[in-house]
Amino acid sequence: LTVYRAEIQRRFSDLDLMGHVNNVVFAEYAQEARVLMFRELFHGQASGVAWVLARQEIDFRRPVMLRPEPLLVESRITEIGRSSFRFTSCMIDETGAVAADAAGVMVCFDKETQQGIPIPDSVREVLQRAIEE
Amino acid sequence: LTVYRAEIQRRFSDLDLMGHVNNVVFAEYAQEARVLMFRELFHGQASGVAWVLARQEIDFRRPVMLRPEPLLVESRITEIGRSSFRFTSCMIDETGAVAADAAGVMVCFDKETQQGIPIPDSVREVLQRAIEE
Amino acid sequence: LTVYRAEIQRRFSDLDLMGHVNNVVFAEYAQEARVLMFRELFHGQASGVAWVLARQEIDFRRPVMLRPEPLLVESRITEIGRSSFRFTSCMIDETGAVAADAAGVMVCFDKETQQGIPIPDSVREVLQRAIEE
Amino acid sequence: LTVYRAEIQRRFSDLDLMGHVNNVVFAEYAQEARVLMFRELFHGQASGVAWVLARQEIDFRRPVMLRPEPLLVESRITEIGRSSFRFTSCMIDETGAVAADAAGVMVCFDKETQQGIPIPDSVREVLQRAIEE
Repeated sequence: LTVYRAEIQRRFSDLDLMGHVNNVVFAEYAQEARVLMFRELFHGQASGVAWVLARQEIDFRRPVMLRPEPLLVESRITEIGRSSFRFTSCMIDETGAVAADAAGVMVCFDKETQQGIPIPDSVREVLQRAIEE
Repeated sequence: LTVYRAEIQRRFSDLDLMGHVNNVVFAEYAQEARVLMFRELFHGQASGVAWVLARQEIDFRRPVMLRPEPLLVESRITEIGRSSFRFTSCMIDETGAVAADAAGVMVCFDKETQQGIPIPDSVREVLQRAIEE
Repeated sequence: LTVYRAEIQRRFSDLDLMGHVNNVVFAEYAQEARVLMFRELFHGQASGVAWVLARQEIDFRRPVMLRPEPLLVESRITEIGRSSFRFTSCMIDETGAVAADAAGVMVCFDKETQQGIPIPDSVREVLQRAIEE
Repeated sequence: LTVYRAEIQRRFSDLDLMGHVNNVVFAEYAQEARVLMFRELFHGQASGVAWVLARQEIDFRRPVMLRPEPLLVESRITEIGRSSFRFTSCMIDETGAVAADAAGVMVCFDKETQQGIPIPDSVREVLQRAIEE
């Protein structure tokens, strides 16, 4: 499995009343890391298809504070289906500890019909390589 | 199970590039609904303890658009453990369709030690009633 | 001047570390109120043109807390130019006090050229009526 | 005037429907840059006092898109009053062009009384040096 590493800069506005990065923001971090993964996979080109998140689960393991260091998010594509793929996102704090673990499913989406569609072959090949290498 | 109903006003800023309420915002909606559930459970008083989200899973079933109608979020407490409880959040759009389904675990948290603690009895009683009634 | 009144539901996630609605969120409230103003002005139809914010100033007068009551935002169109209009946004808390005052300029925008363009006559008439009535 | 330079990583979630960084997010960028300025001014220590934004004006000069390069925000303290200081924030895109210009006033704030207070001398000295050097 290829590991896509994204360094996410934390923001003051990521914090909630308790002084922790709010749980909602972890979903944002995972999304930012997926955007960067796509940019790497398709060399900055649009993949030609749209993707929507169909499912995501996040385990929050440790509070994350505001620090100058980026949060590291490791994304992996773990399985490819007919019209979707599975991924994991591991969020690692400045001490190297896992702050949160996410996993989910993204579905290939037709903007016109607003329906899921089979992943085009050219796109599938790129995703497949990310699993095999 | 008591059902806590929250009506969440959608915002233009909830939308992403595709014109859908972004997946991240569903976690925000679920959180807002939990805040309102707590307000109802404890009659607007602080529960005296802090809570952190330990886990959440969301299934995204239908795109949600910007509409004047609120999104309805139904929260239920489904199980109470020693230091945590399980909940579900069901998000229902203006047509009555389920837009997303979430479930998760909240842990009772000591702000001083930043550790999980057993749920105090007085709080447990309130949660217990939400399950039984 | 017609006054467009928007009731904005506050969110837990609008709060910052200090427990106040963060200053950034006031710009969001003003934007939501403008979206609602446009919906009223054009009866829920797209105005047919795009608008971008060219300038905004906000005076923050009182801290706003998380309350069940909505924040009231009163928007007024105060002046119409060749390709822009001026507006004010007054944000009023649950006690009736002015929490923040904003004023700004929106420019009519061509998405193709990404440039400002003159306001089309049909749109100008609608805006003009908002000033005169 | 000392110039405090902050490099802000853009996020997909900063974009609105039009594909531009939304105007609201510029206020967030300016705030993040002020947080970093404070960190530099007080060497990562809390300044011992709280600050609230009393006023901010932003001129939006050019659309900002999602790019891998950070947005550069230059903050300057331009004037110190009895209980407040004035600042400017200049946001510069990847081409070196000014995307937005902000200016504002921050007020020294007592969390207990929720009122403005005179800037303590030790804090004033630090701010003063930022103007003189």
